[in-house]
Amino acid sequence: MTPSAPRPDDPRPARPIRRRPGGRTARIRAQVLDAVLAELGEHGYDGLTMDAVAARADVHRATVYRRWGDVGGLLADVLDAASDDEWQPPDTASLEGDLAALNHEIQAALTAEPPIVAALIAASFRSEKADRAQRRLWEDRYARCEIIVTRAVRRGELPPHTDARRLLIAATAPLYHHLVLLRTPPDPHLPDDAARTAALAASAGAFTEFPPTTGT
Amino acid sequence: MTPSAPRPDDPRPARPIRRRPGGRTARIRAQVLDAVLAELGEHGYDGLTMDAVAARADVHRATVYRRWGDVGGLLADVLDAASDDEWQPPDTASLEGDLAALNHEIQAALTAEPPIVAALIAASFRSEKADRAQRRLWEDRYARCEIIVTRAVRRGELPPHTDARRLLIAATAPLYHHLVLLRTPPDPHLPDDAARTAALAASAGAFTEFPPTTGT
Repeated sequence: MTPSAPRPDDPRPARPIRRRPGGRTARIRAQVLDAVLAELGEHGYDGLTMDAVAARADVHRATVYRRWGDVGGLLADVLDAASDDEWQPPDTASLEGDLAALNHEIQAALTAEPPIVAALIAASFRSEKADRAQRRLWEDRYARCEIIVTRAVRRGELPPHTDARRLLIAATAPLYHHLVLLRTPPDPHLPDDAARTAALAASAGAFTEFPPTTGT
Repeated sequence: MTPSAPRPDDPRPARPIRRRPGGRTARIRAQVLDAVLAELGEHGYDGLTMDAVAARADVHRATVYRRWGDVGGLLADVLDAASDDEWQPPDTASLEGDLAALNHEIQAALTAEPPIVAALIAASFRSEKADRAQRRLWEDRYARCEIIVTRAVRRGELPPHTDARRLLIAATAPLYHHLVLLRTPPDPHLPDDAARTAALAASAGAFTEFPPTTGT
């Protein structure tokens, strides 16, 4: 298999970790992180070992131990490397369209084979370091997505002072709830349904600073 | 500490597993499940062992191994026992009120100390048996909550043919997303905000069979 960078929220065909200028150190990092992803995809967290990663990456064990410390350190670096990309949220010229496209990316990432994104989320329940790195990655992704709301406000689709983060969480949370926690089979309508629900609530002012009540 | 039954979505003061008629077998089960909860609350999944549970429950090790097999079997039985209660969702006479009260129960359960509900969810990423039992418990809870939507339809708050499950997931998913996955500090406004958002979307027809579009 081709080892691939984890790109939560981004289902585009997997690519090897980006080679950055930096010579040998950067090359070793890329080899090691590619090997982590390959091992994780094949064996999951329980089968992931420092030695297997070193062997697969063709890097000295001592280097891997010195630089990453343990499996948690490897996973954290994989997750940190995932933010080091050019990913931008979809731009479809409507709020509902943007949220739906985003949700399709999330659903594709969470149901991809090998299940690398799912394995990384599961690992975040096992390793403190992976947990912190997973949260940094989510923070990065949600921050990048705020432009979706800014554009919708600019187009007049949403009231000013709409809370972008709350809207984005409302739109995407049902995907994670179904696929990561409830573990229901993927529903092809869910990405669009969840986007439409959040867009309807947003149009009704649910995410403004002084929201209306439902009047019941 | 007083060992307590896990009652996901139910933050009422913890009680020991309910004693059912059945004599010695039922008594042993109650002792063992209480011990599992106490050990889990104190040491988490990683510190949970068959031997520590047997010792704490004052039950023969052989009995625990024969009846529950392994730690996954113990956790699954704890989760199955949690559905064996009289829990009903809140009835506040309005959809938004019911969803808000439900969300407050979920937030309280997910942030309780000791973190038993959180530990059980984390364990479901480690053990196949715990995973299946956790999903059965969620299914049970969401099925019981459908009455919230039935009542709202009956009161004329919602259109008939509102999809109860989709509405309930939309209302509760942000709580799980924040507290279980993103692990943000609990936001005291979140239960009410998420309830209001789902109620607004529901009033706008987001969960009916042929939903309106946002018209953009």
